[in-house]
Amino acid sequence: MALIVQKYGGTSVGSPDRIMNVARRAIAYRKKGHQVVVVVSAMSGETDRLINLAHQVTDSPDKRELDMIVSTGEQVSIALLAMAVKKLGLDAISLTGGQVGIVTDKAYSKARIEEIDTRIIRSHLREGRIVIVAGFQGVDPEGNITTLGRGGSDTTAVAVAAALKADECEIYTDVDGVYTADPRIVPEAKRVGKISFTEMLELANMGAKVLHSRSVIFAMKYNVKLSVRSSFDKIGSTVCTYCVKEDKGMERIVVTGVAAKNDEARVTVPALPDRPGVAAKLFSELAKKNINVNLIVQSSSQKGGRGVNDISFTVPKNELKDTVAVSDRITKQLSAGSVTVDKDISIVSIVGVGMRSHSGIAARMFNIMAEEKINLQMISTSEIRISAVIKSSEIQRAVRALHKGFELHKIGR
Amino acid sequence: MALIVQKYGGTSVGSPDRIMNVARRAIAYRKKGHQVVVVVSAMSGETDRLINLAHQVTDSPDKRELDMIVSTGEQVSIALLAMAVKKLGLDAISLTGGQVGIVTDKAYSKARIEEIDTRIIRSHLREGRIVIVAGFQGVDPEGNITTLGRGGSDTTAVAVAAALKADECEIYTDVDGVYTADPRIVPEAKRVGKISFTEMLELANMGAKVLHSRSVIFAMKYNVKLSVRSSFDKIGSTVCTYCVKEDKGMERIVVTGVAAKNDEARVTVPALPDRPGVAAKLFSELAKKNINVNLIVQSSSQKGGRGVNDISFTVPKNELKDTVAVSDRITKQLSAGSVTVDKDISIVSIVGVGMRSHSGIAARMFNIMAEEKINLQMISTSEIRISAVIKSSEIQRAVRALHKGFELHKIGR
Repeated sequence: MALIVQKYGGTSVGSPDRIMNVARRAIAYRKKGHQVVVVVSAMSGETDRLINLAHQVTDSPDKRELDMIVSTGEQVSIALLAMAVKKLGLDAISLTGGQVGIVTDKAYSKARIEEIDTRIIRSHLREGRIVIVAGFQGVDPEGNITTLGRGGSDTTAVAVAAALKADECEIYTDVDGVYTADPRIVPEAKRVGKISFTEMLELANMGAKVLHSRSVIFAMKYNVKLSVRSSFDKIGSTVCTYCVKEDKGMERIVVTGVAAKNDEARVTVPALPDRPGVAAKLFSELAKKNINVNLIVQSSSQKGGRGVNDISFTVPKNELKDTVAVSDRITKQLSAGSVTVDKDISIVSIVGVGMRSHSGIAARMFNIMAEEKINLQMISTSEIRISAVIKSSEIQRAVRALHKGFELHKIGR
Repeated sequence: MALIVQKYGGTSVGSPDRIMNVARRAIAYRKKGHQVVVVVSAMSGETDRLINLAHQVTDSPDKRELDMIVSTGEQVSIALLAMAVKKLGLDAISLTGGQVGIVTDKAYSKARIEEIDTRIIRSHLREGRIVIVAGFQGVDPEGNITTLGRGGSDTTAVAVAAALKADECEIYTDVDGVYTADPRIVPEAKRVGKISFTEMLELANMGAKVLHSRSVIFAMKYNVKLSVRSSFDKIGSTVCTYCVKEDKGMERIVVTGVAAKNDEARVTVPALPDRPGVAAKLFSELAKKNINVNLIVQSSSQKGGRGVNDISFTVPKNELKDTVAVSDRITKQLSAGSVTVDKDISIVSIVGVGMRSHSGIAARMFNIMAEEKINLQMISTSEIRISAVIKSSEIQRAVRALHKGFELHKIGR
C-alpha cells in the first residue's frame, strides 16, 4: 500500500464531467489499496472570473481581500470533487488550506508555505477517506487566507507529499509529460522519460509551463518522487515524465530541453557609478516590492574618466510598472542616466546537466543563432543553462533551430 | 459613539455598483463616529448558482460539501465590500464565519449558532476598521464549515449584535420596513412603525419574508434593538420598522399584520390509535430528520368502538418526501390508515398582541372568510395568532379580505 498525492489543474476539473473523471481515477488508486490525497485547482476560468469581479469594484484591489475572493475557486472544486467521489460510492472529505493546516507567510498573492500539519489528513486517511485538498491556498499565522500565486497548486501538492512522506506525487495536466520543447512550436519534440530536478527547475523558470518552479524546489529539497501525467490518458497509463534526483547516466545528454519565455520585459539602468553596493541597493529595493527579477547582466565601462556599470535585467511584464518606479527613483538619487524598457523581447534557453561535462555548448548555441541571423541582446548562463534575450518575433524560429541543432528529436532518456 | 451592526441581503450587494452603495452607507455611519460591523449575504443568484453546480455533479450532494461550496458566496461578497470601502478611503477587513469565531452545531445546511468570539471583531473595531462579516455561515467545533440555512444572514447579524452588545442591528432589505400585509397583494398595506418581537416572530413563521424567524428569536432573547430598513433609501433616512420588546400601548391594536405562506403542504395521518405516545413517536421521528413541522391539528373520534385520532400537520414542500417516508413507516407499524398529502394549500394568518385582551377575534376572522366563501381546512391558534389552512388559489383573496375586515389600512403604530 502506497500513499499517493495527485494534483489536478483547472482544465482537469473544468466541468462536472471532468470532475467525475478525476474522481474515477482517484477511486481506481484507492481500490488498489493505496491511500490517496488529491490536490485540485479552481475550475478553469474561475480564478480569472473572480479577479475580474474584484476589478469591477476597484482598479487596485487590496491584496488580502483579493486572496479572500480568489481562494473560493478551489473551495468550490474540492467540494464538487468530494461529492463526485461520494456519488461513486467511496468516502471522501474536502479540506481548505486553512482546514488542512497549511501555514504560509503573509505575502498575499505569492505566499510561501512555512508548515503543514499532517495530523488532520492522516486521521482522514486512516478512516479510509480520499482526502481532497484545496491547492494554491493557505492561512498565515493569524488565520488570514493567503494564496501562493499562479501555479501554486503544484506547490501545494508537492509540499503535502513532502509533509506526508508520500511515495509519489503525480501532477496531472493536459500533457503527458515534459517535452524537449513545446510541441506546439516544435512538432517533433519528444517526451523525456526522466528529468533531473535541476533541469526541471531551469526549464520551469525559463518558460516551460508544465510545472511551477517553486514546486520543483520543494520536491528537490525533500526528494519527493514527482511525475507529470495527462489527466486525459486512460486510468492506469504508465506514460509520464519522472522528475528525480540526478543520476550518473544523465550527463551523457548535453541538452535536455529548449524553453521559451515571452512574458518578461527588459529594463536597462545605464551608467550606475561603479561603487560597491549600488547594484545591491537597486535589487534589494526591487526585492522589497516582491518583484521577481529573472536574468541580470552587468557590463562595466569607462565614462568621463569614471568606472560605470550598465545593468540590464528582465522582470515579468506585469511587474514592469513597479520596477520602473523603483529603478527611476534610485537612478535619480545617484544621478545616473535614465531607465529604458523593452517589452518586445523573449528569452530562449537550453538546459541540460550534460553541460557540466561537455565544453563548447555556448559556442554551439551562438553559432546556431548566428546561422539563423538572430541577434542576442543579453546572455546569461548557469551551470546547466544558457539563456539569451532575443526579439519576440524571432522566438519560434530560435526554439526550432536549437531543437534541431542539438538533435533533441533523437533524445533517449 | 454607538456600535451599529448593519446587514445587507443579496439584492443589496447584487452588483459592483450596489456594493459601492453599501460601502458608502457604512462609511457615512463610520464618519459620524460610530463603530460599524457589516454582515452581508452572497450576491443575489450566487447561492442558487452554486447549488446548481453541485447538482450537476450529483442529485443528492453531501451536506457537508454543499455547505463548503455555498459558503463561498458570502466569502466573495465580504471581500468585494472590503475592497469597496478601502477604495473610498477608509480601512476595512473582511472575515469569514470561521475567522470571526462563529461556532455552530454540526447540522449542515441548517446549523445553529452556539458561540461567537467577539475578540477578533473588537480588536479590528478598536483599530478603526469597518468590520465585514460573512453572513449565513460558521464552523462547527471541529472546524468544518456550516451554513445556517436560507435567511441565515439575518441570524448572523443579530447574533453578532447580541454578542457585541451593539446599540442597534439594522437589517437592510428591498423594503423599508414591516407592512401590515405584502404590498404586492394588498396595495393599501401600511408600514408599521414598531412591532413586538413576538408579533414579528409569528409573522416570520407564517410567511412574512422580511426577517428570518431565528433572527427574531435571537433578538428577543438578547433584547437587541432591531430595525428593518431599505438599502435603496437615501443614506440618513429614518424610515424603518423597529422590532422591540412589547410595550403597554401595543395591545390596543388587535391585528398588526396578515401573512400568507405558500410553500407548505398538508399531511394527514388518519386514525392513529388513541394511545399515549403515538403522536410523540411520529413527531420525534420527524424531528430526528430535522423536518420543520409547522401547524399541527389533532381530532379525536370513535371508530369501530375504539378511540382514534386523525392528525394533520403542515411541512415545507421540499421536506415532503422525507415526511411521507417517516409517516408511512410509523402508520404501518401501528396498522393505521394510509397517509394522505395535499400540496395545493396555503396558510393565512392574522397576528397581533391585542388578541390577548380582545375577545371574539377568531369568530370575526371566520366570519370574514365565510363571507368570502373560503373554506377553512385546518385552524391553529397561538396566544397572538390565528392561522387557517385554505386552498392555494384563494390565498390572495383571503389576505385582502382580512386586511380590509380588520381595517389594517388604518393602523397607527
